[in-house]
Amino acid sequence: MSLRKVALISAGSTSYGKSLLTGRDLALLAAKEALERIEMMPYEIQGAFIANAFGLSERQGHLGPLIMSGLGIPDIPASTIEAACSSGGSAFREAYINIAAGVYDVMLVVGTEKISHLSTEVATTYFTFGSDYLFEGACGASFPGLYATMAIAHMQKYETTQEQLAQVAVKNHENGMKNEKAHLHKRISVEDVLQSSIVAYPLKMYDSCPFSDGAAAVILASEDYLKKNGRDESISILGSGRAGGYGSLHSRDDMTSIRSSILASREAFNRANLSIKDVDFAEVHDCFTIAEIIAMEDLGFVERGKAAQAVEQGRTRLDGDIPINPSGGLKSKGHPIGATGIGQVVEVFEQLTENAGERQIKGAKIGMTHNVGATGGSSAVHIFTRS
Amino acid sequence: MSLRKVALISAGSTSYGKSLLTGRDLALLAAKEALERIEMMPYEIQGAFIANAFGLSERQGHLGPLIMSGLGIPDIPASTIEAACSSGGSAFREAYINIAAGVYDVMLVVGTEKISHLSTEVATTYFTFGSDYLFEGACGASFPGLYATMAIAHMQKYETTQEQLAQVAVKNHENGMKNEKAHLHKRISVEDVLQSSIVAYPLKMYDSCPFSDGAAAVILASEDYLKKNGRDESISILGSGRAGGYGSLHSRDDMTSIRSSILASREAFNRANLSIKDVDFAEVHDCFTIAEIIAMEDLGFVERGKAAQAVEQGRTRLDGDIPINPSGGLKSKGHPIGATGIGQVVEVFEQLTENAGERQIKGAKIGMTHNVGATGGSSAVHIFTRS
Repeated sequence: MSLRKVALISAGSTSYGKSLLTGRDLALLAAKEALERIEMMPYEIQGAFIANAFGLSERQGHLGPLIMSGLGIPDIPASTIEAACSSGGSAFREAYINIAAGVYDVMLVVGTEKISHLSTEVATTYFTFGSDYLFEGACGASFPGLYATMAIAHMQKYETTQEQLAQVAVKNHENGMKNEKAHLHKRISVEDVLQSSIVAYPLKMYDSCPFSDGAAAVILASEDYLKKNGRDESISILGSGRAGGYGSLHSRDDMTSIRSSILASREAFNRANLSIKDVDFAEVHDCFTIAEIIAMEDLGFVERGKAAQAVEQGRTRLDGDIPINPSGGLKSKGHPIGATGIGQVVEVFEQLTENAGERQIKGAKIGMTHNVGATGGSSAVHIFTRS
Repeated sequence: MSLRKVALISAGSTSYGKSLLTGRDLALLAAKEALERIEMMPYEIQGAFIANAFGLSERQGHLGPLIMSGLGIPDIPASTIEAACSSGGSAFREAYINIAAGVYDVMLVVGTEKISHLSTEVATTYFTFGSDYLFEGACGASFPGLYATMAIAHMQKYETTQEQLAQVAVKNHENGMKNEKAHLHKRISVEDVLQSSIVAYPLKMYDSCPFSDGAAAVILASEDYLKKNGRDESISILGSGRAGGYGSLHSRDDMTSIRSSILASREAFNRANLSIKDVDFAEVHDCFTIAEIIAMEDLGFVERGKAAQAVEQGRTRLDGDIPINPSGGLKSKGHPIGATGIGQVVEVFEQLTENAGERQIKGAKIGMTHNVGATGGSSAVHIFTRS
């Protein structure tokens, strides 16, 4: 049985950073931008998914009806999907499947997160609820520590250096300078990264993404519906993949790779009937600099152990042969947990519709998103092309 | 485009009540029971959804990878779906759609909730996070108060009496006596209900479901897969519906009805090409006695304003013409939030496979589940038949 063709027809997002608004209000702003961009009235939306991980910290679950009511379409069903930091990619996939299956013709997916009402300590604690808490968070292993462990393993196995990790941050901050919605607008040098305060050795402050509030929204539609309604197809979704992995880092045989990324990308490429060589750029999950290095190797952009060198050579810059995180990535654009995976899709939309301004990758035809939950307990990968 | 046929092939659940186990462990027990019941090895599972609402109260989000790892199948993707008290029904629907679309052939859906580590006050507060918290929970309107408001409205409009509400509780407690996994095993009288302490007038303790821990699991498969593997089809899923409604009660025109229930059941019946007259029994969302009355009218079992009378006449008892909540319902079986909607499907499985023991509805061929989030911000309805 074949799935229907599904198009990505609009995208919107708030600026990422610190906000005084609630998660629900941020979600409404992002959704409104996506709707207005294509002059779509809310009543054209038939179903929705919300991506959110820590809404309970705002004393608010069950976000769907609140967001749909805020848009004036309370009847529209909207469940929340959570898979820690890959909540967005997971929610996007289910919307894709709902439309591909013919259940709905037009869907809205909104990712949102508000975290700045919490102190850094409390926010870090909340984030550890995405780990295997009993064996990790409760034992003092927060995400910087877990990713630091992966970084150490990668440095030992492949002689990756702290300078090379720093170059990921420098490149992503450079891209973020060109993204007005990015959380961090600050050009940094390798020296700045190396001299920044240690968060969990070898990861320093500038190896780490910031705590961001923000929301991102996209609209998907069946190509049948678009033809019938004389709307532009914009972007086609070619493939979707989702996979799991051990929730806890200590359960894994290898800490230099995230198996769920490998499996999710394999599924996505199989469904798209493409290979990594066909991809012109990618938004990957760089919650820490090491995460981008590991993603490049897991997704197959380079051979094992060669990612750091590729970064060093400038191959992943906007003008390189494999641009990674043109948006600035989680590192500079920011990481509002539930919004992140949807925000990656927003960037693909901007790039493939040639609306990325100064950070536009010229002639890009195929883009991908790669969204990881925690240290790899979940991954979601999607592949897109311009029509 | 037509969806593939999907079968419900197994079901398992923990006892509902107070447990010392964590939500993840409860989920594993329920999943294990569902797998063992049909002698299925975990590796046959290709994808999963977890239904859970308040895992963060246990300091644990991102339950999917933990539960899949516990089953020995860490690679299997498993996002969490949340829609307050209708998390289970919503998760079930997405698994149904994934299989119907041909994305997977075999899926596990596990609903789980652990709440008894919290005091009654804190648990009640957590539950209000499923309401429109800023306008309801934060203003002191917890769910007993919100459903009490609906009860008052129904009493004023239809002359429904407290005695009639009590009869819902008496009937569900009677059914729960025949369900060894039910939380409350206590035969009660109308007098007992009327004399129990007032929670929020006119709702009394025995009008209210208990706080339960528990988990429930079901396994779904494509009929293609079952034929290929020589497995029994057991139960067919005929229709699925999901809808939203205003998150806050004060936004609605009418408090005697839940519009999302009406819309979700309309979708489910349309997809099944059936009407309510075809249904032999239903598991409906009776978080309070008034909720069962409203559900009977919204689903169309009786005319508006006639449900209380039908209960009074014994029509909804096990031996009545429209048995409602043979399991004991949320009222007596219990209401472990994320598990509830899946637990309803477990009861349909027991009934349609004639494994319901003393509470078996003889000759039942078509059953339905009706799962409501909060005061109706979300609803999910499913219709099943024996093959």
